[in-house]
Amino acid sequence: MQSLQEKASEWSGVSQNDAFEIDNTNLFQKLGLQTFINLSTNFYTRVYDDEEEWFRLIFANSKKEEAIQNQYEFFVQRMGGPPLYSQRKGHPALIGRHRPFPVTHQAAERWLHHMQQALDSVTEIDADSKTKMMNFFRHTAFFLVAGDELKNRNQGVPCKHGASKPAAV
Amino acid sequence: MQSLQEKASEWSGVSQNDAFEIDNTNLFQKLGLQTFINLSTNFYTRVYDDEEEWFRLIFANSKKEEAIQNQYEFFVQRMGGPPLYSQRKGHPALIGRHRPFPVTHQAAERWLHHMQQALDSVTEIDADSKTKMMNFFRHTAFFLVAGDELKNRNQGVPCKHGASKPAAV
Repeated sequence: MQSLQEKASEWSGVSQNDAFEIDNTNLFQKLGLQTFINLSTNFYTRVYDDEEEWFRLIFANSKKEEAIQNQYEFFVQRMGGPPLYSQRKGHPALIGRHRPFPVTHQAAERWLHHMQQALDSVTEIDADSKTKMMNFFRHTAFFLVAGDELKNRNQGVPCKHGASKPAAV
Repeated sequence: MQSLQEKASEWSGVSQNDAFEIDNTNLFQKLGLQTFINLSTNFYTRVYDDEEEWFRLIFANSKKEEAIQNQYEFFVQRMGGPPLYSQRKGHPALIGRHRPFPVTHQAAERWLHHMQQALDSVTEIDADSKTKMMNFFRHTAFFLVAGDELKNRNQGVPCKHGASKPAAV
């Protein structure tokens, strides 16, 4: 069986090595906190205004300000800055915390579409950092699609009301 | 509804702040790679030899050497060292990756029992580091119990064969 990270690489087209190139530099030191805040604000402004309703609705139960803070605190922590996310919320637990959301291939692509636009809009981010971040985001998005499929697999467990095959999901 | 980290604090008796004290020092620099390898080797030797069969069996489908490497690479990465775990396996995704295992309150306590013994056996670990690590482990163990309960909650979704209440699990 393919591992989560193997699926992520196959589906994203980004190798494990390229995805974690972010660990060979310190993007937080290079870009600074405000750039990460700007990026997440730009990103979620696009998401909450998305003309694609199916995607916008995924976020309907989350507050925009909170989504922004969760995201930039995680990015800062993961890209060489202080552990802002864990101080406030504990482990990132990316798959566990994305459990309420339908993280499909289509949703991953839409997320990445907005993130690419956001990266292009925040002019403080140089081309090299942008490439590294996008590789990390692309691989991570499909890692979460792989994580989401685990959830569907469990829902396919036969129920106890006499049917011998898994319930359709 | 209580968040994962609130449940973790309540059940473990360790506050969020105490759990993430590990971020205010660099335990990897203080202790070095070999100490982490020794700790995980000591820990899993206890686990795989556990006289409590119910606990030992949780690990029956995992190779001991692999369990040791997964653990010390994660600890090293999380406690200030190089990102060994992510280079090899991607995101820790603690809840997602513990999905196959029944992480009950009882299992958390048994895990912590062995970890306390392992910490006490590895003499290179000073008392202060030991306290910090144990707070982190204790909080994390119950964070995973909270994560495990999400899984059970989903299994309780009504099945599609006419029963109006959730299937027993």
